[in-house]
Amino acid sequence: MLKKIVIFGVGLIGGSFARALRQAGAVEQIVGVGRTAKVLERAKELGIIDVASTSVEEALRGADLVLLAAPVAQTEVILKSIKPYLQAGTVVTDAGSIKGEVVTTARAVLGDKITQFVPGHPIAGLEANGPEAAIPDLYVGKKVVLTPLAENSAADVALVAQAWQQCGAIIHQLTPENHDAVFAAVSHLPHLLAFALVDDIANKPHADLLFQYAASGFRDFTRIAGSSPEMWRDISLSNQGAILTELDAYIAQLTRFRAQLAAGDGLAMQAMFANAQQARQNWQRSIETAEPQHQPDGDK
Amino acid sequence: MLKKIVIFGVGLIGGSFARALRQAGAVEQIVGVGRTAKVLERAKELGIIDVASTSVEEALRGADLVLLAAPVAQTEVILKSIKPYLQAGTVVTDAGSIKGEVVTTARAVLGDKITQFVPGHPIAGLEANGPEAAIPDLYVGKKVVLTPLAENSAADVALVAQAWQQCGAIIHQLTPENHDAVFAAVSHLPHLLAFALVDDIANKPHADLLFQYAASGFRDFTRIAGSSPEMWRDISLSNQGAILTELDAYIAQLTRFRAQLAAGDGLAMQAMFANAQQARQNWQRSIETAEPQHQPDGDK
Repeated sequence: MLKKIVIFGVGLIGGSFARALRQAGAVEQIVGVGRTAKVLERAKELGIIDVASTSVEEALRGADLVLLAAPVAQTEVILKSIKPYLQAGTVVTDAGSIKGEVVTTARAVLGDKITQFVPGHPIAGLEANGPEAAIPDLYVGKKVVLTPLAENSAADVALVAQAWQQCGAIIHQLTPENHDAVFAAVSHLPHLLAFALVDDIANKPHADLLFQYAASGFRDFTRIAGSSPEMWRDISLSNQGAILTELDAYIAQLTRFRAQLAAGDGLAMQAMFANAQQARQNWQRSIETAEPQHQPDGDK
Repeated sequence: MLKKIVIFGVGLIGGSFARALRQAGAVEQIVGVGRTAKVLERAKELGIIDVASTSVEEALRGADLVLLAAPVAQTEVILKSIKPYLQAGTVVTDAGSIKGEVVTTARAVLGDKITQFVPGHPIAGLEANGPEAAIPDLYVGKKVVLTPLAENSAADVALVAQAWQQCGAIIHQLTPENHDAVFAAVSHLPHLLAFALVDDIANKPHADLLFQYAASGFRDFTRIAGSSPEMWRDISLSNQGAILTELDAYIAQLTRFRAQLAAGDGLAMQAMFANAQQARQNWQRSIETAEPQHQPDGDK
């Protein structure tokens, strides 16, 4: 039982974490901290948090666990506000979709207190935000990737893991570097490719004609181009190195394919399509086995 | 009322055309022609066709309308078999997802009889094939793009248009060149980009780890990489010129983005994301207005 948890950013992610722990009977008191008083008041009205705090010092007093669930660009400012009042025995974690830059920032701000920071990334979400969107089962059956630091104690890592497990999540572990490389490849790059295609089409003189004939294939391929421009600017900048690596590999791939197409090399193209189709179908089967309930897990 | 129609290739596309016209009471006799006797027999058992023909000459006698609904790579061989028996007064149309090469082939094979060929492309489909998959409402509310030739009479174009309208489809018209350019941009290129990404990831040494963390964004972006490798080889070769144009523009787009990312140009990247997001959301709203029933229209 956690006596007191503090959530910075009581939106979809932070609010759902609160609701889930409450539903599991795993927490006594939930304190919310945020930039906008109105949002915090709403979260309190909705029963997501018990206390809407304006004082970081009061919020942190006696806290077992602190979750940073605000936009990842606010990590530095939040950690700076926490540092002076962070008591030994309090564990801090986050929910940012990139880990390398978060860790660098945390080391710079927290100094020796870095031992108390266990970075994490819940792979869950909905096309909605704010406290109104918070639901208790957002994390059920979803992955949470922890990227513990060498300085973290096993006990502190376990505390964070158990909290997420109480939310129904499945814990995975990667180094911050591997985390960022993996998500650059399977999440960040696809989002950027989708943005690039839609922008490319929208800028053509006959864009209206093109959109008129876009159908289901286009719809699915470009759904993620409906995502937040600000969030993706932040992710691109924060995971620049890993994304460049993946993007360069992909541009090389397209360049190779371009040459095959120009040469009319049907066999080579078909081999690539077949390899992709098989991998995609294998993957589809594996996720249907693992997650029979179809819940959008909205990678960020 | 069409007295007699002939369908070459009684699968999902041809079979659904037959079922739709039958349901609309718009045809008296439906004749099926195909390479595999067993498939034709099945189509006859299922009541999709009245006659499973082994003689093109007999099939075409007195036919009002002929639909080529076989794989587009068979167009030449089918037109060659039709040419000697094609009577004045019979209109021939097709369902191929590319038009330029079909028209070139038709001109070469049909000679003067090109006047009787009205190229078309129904934008519909399901992730299923064969006569078992044929359904009468496949085309309801879906677009059919006709690409009439200068040589076609208005009456013949109208006959084809009306047949598809009896199936519930909405008729659009483009030149063959514009058709191929449009579909290169909004259908062919996205499919090829998805194949390229999945192949790229599948070939990495740590592919298993990557697929483990692929989530809903990846799923939607790559759904179309589950498509038929053979079909996409054929489309790539048949629409080579238009696809190269789109692919070159896209590679240039990625190269520009790559430079912005390397330079840490957050503003420029955000501007591209915002332009794409807005275009995508505008498009989404426009299709929700136009097609409230959610039927996969499976662009090929």
